[in-house]
Amino acid sequence: MRDAYFDQLDTIVDELVTMTRDVKVALRKATLSLLTADVEIAEQVISEDSRIDSDRERIEERAFELLALQQPVASDLRMLIAALRMVADLERMGDLSVHVAKVARLRVPVVAIPDELVPTIERMAEVAESMVGRAAEIIANRDVEAARALEESDEEMDALRRSSFRVMLDDSWAHGVEPAVDMALLGRYYERIADHAVSLARRVVYLVTGEIATSEAP
Amino acid sequence: MRDAYFDQLDTIVDELVTMTRDVKVALRKATLSLLTADVEIAEQVISEDSRIDSDRERIEERAFELLALQQPVASDLRMLIAALRMVADLERMGDLSVHVAKVARLRVPVVAIPDELVPTIERMAEVAESMVGRAAEIIANRDVEAARALEESDEEMDALRRSSFRVMLDDSWAHGVEPAVDMALLGRYYERIADHAVSLARRVVYLVTGEIATSEAP
Repeated sequence: MRDAYFDQLDTIVDELVTMTRDVKVALRKATLSLLTADVEIAEQVISEDSRIDSDRERIEERAFELLALQQPVASDLRMLIAALRMVADLERMGDLSVHVAKVARLRVPVVAIPDELVPTIERMAEVAESMVGRAAEIIANRDVEAARALEESDEEMDALRRSSFRVMLDDSWAHGVEPAVDMALLGRYYERIADHAVSLARRVVYLVTGEIATSEAP
Repeated sequence: MRDAYFDQLDTIVDELVTMTRDVKVALRKATLSLLTADVEIAEQVISEDSRIDSDRERIEERAFELLALQQPVASDLRMLIAALRMVADLERMGDLSVHVAKVARLRVPVVAIPDELVPTIERMAEVAESMVGRAAEIIANRDVEAARALEESDEEMDALRRSSFRVMLDDSWAHGVEPAVDMALLGRYYERIADHAVSLARRVVYLVTGEIATSEAP
């Protein structure tokens, strides 16, 4: 009975890592659909989000079952609570990737992003994807040091966002309102994905050290 | 001992209701600062958000204590898990109100919203505020019927958002990029507040019926 219980706890961690990698794939495809105005890839991101949603349901059910039947204490309890919060973060990251794909789809066959902002979006996407990839490693290895380092990448995301506003609000902006609105929202989506990656990392810190982060999202 | 335990559970519900009302006040003030370009009110929303954050910490600590020390089962366990999720929703709603106030502050002494979009923002704010107020009642009374009805208000929010895009992207739009970008983001903030209100209501449905909502956010 107790062995099965520990197996179940391990399975939850494995499934969180898998779910984080699924989110990373969704994010990569969403960015690709955006930068290449590829409607098929955008549709894939949108339809495959149901897999991320069902990852979530499966992990939640398993965690609830363990909470209800095993009445775990101390570190196991902490782990299950953290898992419930992490799946919520991960599901939102999947939804945000879908939002990116939907902007891409809306503007097909045109690329939603004007040329001068393509490098900014590319870098935002790189930062976000790297943060999600590192979050998967952090969860797999319970790596508190790497978790703390993740917050620094989040600062680059904020700087990229500010620079995109400077470009859009400059007198030389020649693309009108629509691409600016798209860019403002896309910047917000990537920024939120990065915030949730930081949040995942903070949950691992909590899991290992018992420290509660002072804020849900940075 | 058990009496103190039930008192603690009741206290958590009371504190969730209080926190929801604090969020409603933050949202109302944020909208007021936005529509009147009032920097003092905007600053209040920003500085008073720390109260919402500490509401959250207090409720979380209480819930963790009960989870760890009392090993609650069945409906009490469900209630504590729901409470942990609800404080996360509520904290985000506070953060989103801060985002609204920051847009207001950034454009002072000018009102960020052009005249023709003021009625749309007013209605978005009304819908969001009413949803938050109803969420407080739903939590206080564990009202499953009212919780289910809340999803309909969320549809009005989506319609308002679409209509704001039609105005901004019309050829007659004469305000340039900046107010359009502000409006796109503000619309997103109000929409997300409404999403979180729906999420709060779904947690109450889960609490009362045991049904898990299929999605974190609508």
